[in-house]
Amino acid sequence: MKLHILGCYAATPRTLTNPTSQVLDIKGHMFLIDCGEGTQVQLRKNKIKFSRINHIFISHLHGDHFFGLPGLISTFRLLGRDKEMHIYGPKGIKEAITLLLKLGDSWTNFPLIFHELTSKETELIYEDDKVSVETIPLNHRVYTNGFLFKEKLGERKLNTEKVAKHKIDISSYQNIKNGKDVTLDSGQVIPNTELTFDSPKPKTYAYCSDTAYMPEIIPQIKGSDVLYHESTFLDSEEHLSGKTKHATAKEAAAIAKAADVGILILGHYSTRYKSIELFKEEAQTIFQNVELADDGKIFEF
Amino acid sequence: MKLHILGCYAATPRTLTNPTSQVLDIKGHMFLIDCGEGTQVQLRKNKIKFSRINHIFISHLHGDHFFGLPGLISTFRLLGRDKEMHIYGPKGIKEAITLLLKLGDSWTNFPLIFHELTSKETELIYEDDKVSVETIPLNHRVYTNGFLFKEKLGERKLNTEKVAKHKIDISSYQNIKNGKDVTLDSGQVIPNTELTFDSPKPKTYAYCSDTAYMPEIIPQIKGSDVLYHESTFLDSEEHLSGKTKHATAKEAAAIAKAADVGILILGHYSTRYKSIELFKEEAQTIFQNVELADDGKIFEF
Repeated sequence: MKLHILGCYAATPRTLTNPTSQVLDIKGHMFLIDCGEGTQVQLRKNKIKFSRINHIFISHLHGDHFFGLPGLISTFRLLGRDKEMHIYGPKGIKEAITLLLKLGDSWTNFPLIFHELTSKETELIYEDDKVSVETIPLNHRVYTNGFLFKEKLGERKLNTEKVAKHKIDISSYQNIKNGKDVTLDSGQVIPNTELTFDSPKPKTYAYCSDTAYMPEIIPQIKGSDVLYHESTFLDSEEHLSGKTKHATAKEAAAIAKAADVGILILGHYSTRYKSIELFKEEAQTIFQNVELADDGKIFEF
Repeated sequence: MKLHILGCYAATPRTLTNPTSQVLDIKGHMFLIDCGEGTQVQLRKNKIKFSRINHIFISHLHGDHFFGLPGLISTFRLLGRDKEMHIYGPKGIKEAITLLLKLGDSWTNFPLIFHELTSKETELIYEDDKVSVETIPLNHRVYTNGFLFKEKLGERKLNTEKVAKHKIDISSYQNIKNGKDVTLDSGQVIPNTELTFDSPKPKTYAYCSDTAYMPEIIPQIKGSDVLYHESTFLDSEEHLSGKTKHATAKEAAAIAKAADVGILILGHYSTRYKSIELFKEEAQTIFQNVELADDGKIFEF
């Protein structure tokens, strides 16, 4: 998994700080998560191929999370896209995008498929043989979902030395990778565990933005390898976080600790603070393994 | 008059080229003309105070001319604006902006007043004692207007020497500036022309983008000091300009020549060309006084 941070600052785009957007490179997919104004320029700056994006997940319909979407969709058209594009987001997103394209008399020449979300319970919204995506219902001023991206357990890895030793034919390799034992011509059964290694442990990424402190999400994100949790404010502005339904760095760390995640990545910083290092310092008083998102940063895990 | 070019490239925003937006600083107004994605960042880069913008003119509802507007309006709210904001643009713009703000449950806390345009004839859409704005109906794939900004003739300038010589009281100054003659206590009448200088010649700026070659606009923009005319293509791509209803540099120059304008500013360049200098070279085969718009450039006239 590789996570490209395209933008991770709260509210208005500025000269050097972009509103929320990220790309999760997972099992061959390039999942775009949120799409604030300027996302298409950030995609170019970060050299991410537009044609590799087929699924876009929008957490909520505040401008700093989706005002880049109409322009991005228009650009897909100008680039001659013909593949399906899937958009997952709150109910209303289809009406908004449809109206904007209609006003410009510029409907897409590729299928644009909306998956509108309304449930307050978690839902499985995407699944193939390698990965699944579930919503994480969050607590913000408007209807909002985070997203839980889970790799599936892959094929077992062939132990080529052992396979050669038993002179096993190549035609059996796929069955072995799928976990089957092998019966030799002699009648001897070689157990699968002798012929294979475990496949790498599947990874999980939890994206939670925007949200107030919400301990109800802990069971769902328990043990995630990586948690991106918004931290708009520091504890000194807790009165504002309550009012605006955002979280502090301390609250994000408390969630990370209780959910026993591998790494906590902070983001969605208010631009009122002098340095984003302050968010890390505050979070680390509660949870040690903290990273700071920043525009253009890439995390590999 | 001072014209700030915030963006002047066609279609999709890129790392170094911004879609259309400009600010006309005229008689104390900062008129924003078009608002492609990223305009609010360009306003910041060009150090233009958000609070000085009270009127926004949108030529047409293609994304590269208005997808920056919802974000800009949201930012005005976050900045605590309370003054009225006037938006002039094609019918549909109110529905679009209203829907986007409603979805984010983030209506403005300042009066947002839409002036929706539908006429195919020129209309006076703004007027005060110093300046007027008329639409220039254009020929594009969707309903489009250019805008003609006209300064009004200002007050006459007081000739302080002559006024002192005749010992005229200060209470008469405003009447003199307004063009009135003065009758002295002796009964002698001093004609206004002796007491004043002409006020500076009022300037006119014509903004024409996007449009196919459209000679019908010539009478309306005749003698304008400055004409900004789109030139998406060079003459070598004339087949594309016809199809997409854009103009070539040569066509823009032909309009400038026939309308006998002072300066022609080219813009809305397709990014397919190696250098924008090519547009100037082509236009100058027809009309000499050509300038190239570029992002961040300021023209004073």
